[in-house]
Amino acid sequence: MKLTKEIVKIVSGEDTPVLLLDLANISLKYHEIRNSIRNVEIFYAMKANNDPKILKLLVDEGCGFEVASEPELRSVLSLGVPPQRIMSMHPIKGPKFLRSLESEGVEIMAFDSFEEVDKISAFAPGSKLVLRIIVDNEGSDWPLTRKFGVEASQAPDLIRYASGKGLNVYGLTFHVGSQCNNKDNWAQAIGECRNVWTKALGEGSNPQFISLGGGIPIRQTHSVPSLDEIGKVIADSVKLNFPTAEGLKLSIEPGRGLVGDSGLMVTTVLGKAKRGNENWIYVDAGVFNALMETVEHYKYEIKTLSRKKKKVFTIAGPSCDSVDVMFENVSINDVEIGDQLFILNSAAYTTVYASNFNGFSIPKIVYI
Amino acid sequence: MKLTKEIVKIVSGEDTPVLLLDLANISLKYHEIRNSIRNVEIFYAMKANNDPKILKLLVDEGCGFEVASEPELRSVLSLGVPPQRIMSMHPIKGPKFLRSLESEGVEIMAFDSFEEVDKISAFAPGSKLVLRIIVDNEGSDWPLTRKFGVEASQAPDLIRYASGKGLNVYGLTFHVGSQCNNKDNWAQAIGECRNVWTKALGEGSNPQFISLGGGIPIRQTHSVPSLDEIGKVIADSVKLNFPTAEGLKLSIEPGRGLVGDSGLMVTTVLGKAKRGNENWIYVDAGVFNALMETVEHYKYEIKTLSRKKKKVFTIAGPSCDSVDVMFENVSINDVEIGDQLFILNSAAYTTVYASNFNGFSIPKIVYI
Repeated sequence: MKLTKEIVKIVSGEDTPVLLLDLANISLKYHEIRNSIRNVEIFYAMKANNDPKILKLLVDEGCGFEVASEPELRSVLSLGVPPQRIMSMHPIKGPKFLRSLESEGVEIMAFDSFEEVDKISAFAPGSKLVLRIIVDNEGSDWPLTRKFGVEASQAPDLIRYASGKGLNVYGLTFHVGSQCNNKDNWAQAIGECRNVWTKALGEGSNPQFISLGGGIPIRQTHSVPSLDEIGKVIADSVKLNFPTAEGLKLSIEPGRGLVGDSGLMVTTVLGKAKRGNENWIYVDAGVFNALMETVEHYKYEIKTLSRKKKKVFTIAGPSCDSVDVMFENVSINDVEIGDQLFILNSAAYTTVYASNFNGFSIPKIVYI
Repeated sequence: MKLTKEIVKIVSGEDTPVLLLDLANISLKYHEIRNSIRNVEIFYAMKANNDPKILKLLVDEGCGFEVASEPELRSVLSLGVPPQRIMSMHPIKGPKFLRSLESEGVEIMAFDSFEEVDKISAFAPGSKLVLRIIVDNEGSDWPLTRKFGVEASQAPDLIRYASGKGLNVYGLTFHVGSQCNNKDNWAQAIGECRNVWTKALGEGSNPQFISLGGGIPIRQTHSVPSLDEIGKVIADSVKLNFPTAEGLKLSIEPGRGLVGDSGLMVTTVLGKAKRGNENWIYVDAGVFNALMETVEHYKYEIKTLSRKKKKVFTIAGPSCDSVDVMFENVSINDVEIGDQLFILNSAAYTTVYASNFNGFSIPKIVYI
């Protein structure tokens, strides 16, 4: 989302922080993903931004939803989303949530442990189980930790264990890493699905379903593979690995990739200080009320309206907390107290993590 | 706060996460700090936990409050706290907040930059300015970043700049680091105050006020200096460095040190998995809805009711986020799905950072 004269006008004099959301752009992005990544059903990973207008818009577009908790499930059901358009790719679900998924008719769900198989067997035996396997995260801005997924070598035991309990092992899922710049990760991951399935069930067997997870990148501080490029890699790899799989269903679950670049955060400079040789500025959108991912070194493009000389800054949030420092060594035009800073493409994973710590406001949403 | 049979009974079968707060213990702690750290006025750093019952209790005790934002200020004013019992030790305050402090008669405030002097001069010229200096954080569990404070060498220029603007430079403040296990830090910091003041204003001059900041440790996974020990170090150091300072006023601003060990969080195991050689458990209190500080490796003592053999676990939160992992290599008695885990001394810096990310609940407060 670009900083336009119209945006500058809208937020001039506004109390900040503000998150501007361009809903029309989200629709556009939805269609772009559909057109580029073909024959793949989109399930929005609603954790990225559960703003009610975003959800409503995507419901109207016919988008599916990926949910991880009871409140997320209730929220999309209440918008009239049919259970066939809901899935839970969370490999670890509490008993209550499993019971709700079963009773609401939501069938597709991930697993990656024997304990989860036991739980699904007890609380949601009618489900379609999707095994999450670990795949290469090389070249992702934010590779995942070891929190979820099984190694390919462990997969056959798990698939057999679930089948042995009479459960329907429906397919596989993976995650190439958040903000994946390496489009070959999808090809490698789809190849890995082929290997895992063959190893578990023998030559010629095919999964009925593969969930391609998240990872679609948006532009932040560097250029990223296009949706068309990613779509081509996926299509080619599916054709190569599953030529005989009639009726193989595919899904993709973008979060940031669908909504992230349809938002722009506006924050105001509250203070400046010279600390040794470092230039610091303090703004009203910080780690705890707006930009949590920066604490893990996530980077955004930052703009100002200043025409002063560029300077290198450390940019900190408004709270007393020493952890509340978002950016180091950022070169921007010098700014004064009261000036606005614009954080581009910041609609995902910002407001959803925000708290009022130390009394500072969560960004107000303004729709344009 | 100990795990007692009474507590186990209270939370048995409760929907978790729950934060149990022992209000009587906070009163006790307030009196302990008063009795151990003598002739020092206590201002509660309310960012640690702004639960209304905690605030009300401390107002009734006559405690002062340290505030950093307009909502924090309004909140204590609305409880009838007189402005003399409020201060803002935040060195960077926005223009609006400064105006409110001035108009409400809150006088004592920190600064540590020329730009802040200009702002105070413009928006709160009647204030009592307190310069934040950088002191040794050696031996603190959580040393601070370079976000706030000036080096001793820069202090004279700043003090002269503020005085030159006709402002009242009233004293000094520092922060020895969060969870300070090294009681000598306070002695060194008070000595540094002596040096800074002498350098800025010459031999024989004395500040009117020293704010001793935060840093009072509570017991988490290891034993910490007692309040009496810290009180003695402070009293001795003040006597040594300011023997001629009649009427020197002192304050201390505990947050965690005042309320942290009067709370206990209860969480439930949602899932288990073997990941390679690692044993993982997944619980309903995670980084984003309850235990944010763990992401910076803050450690808590964890108890279970299990009598099974001890095992080493990685403990993760309930969300799909791979960053949502709180503890690694923790040895606890083996637990099953549905068992409760008890996170001791977790009343500070937990609920105040919490969000409903991914739909997971913020801990419900239960008072005992």
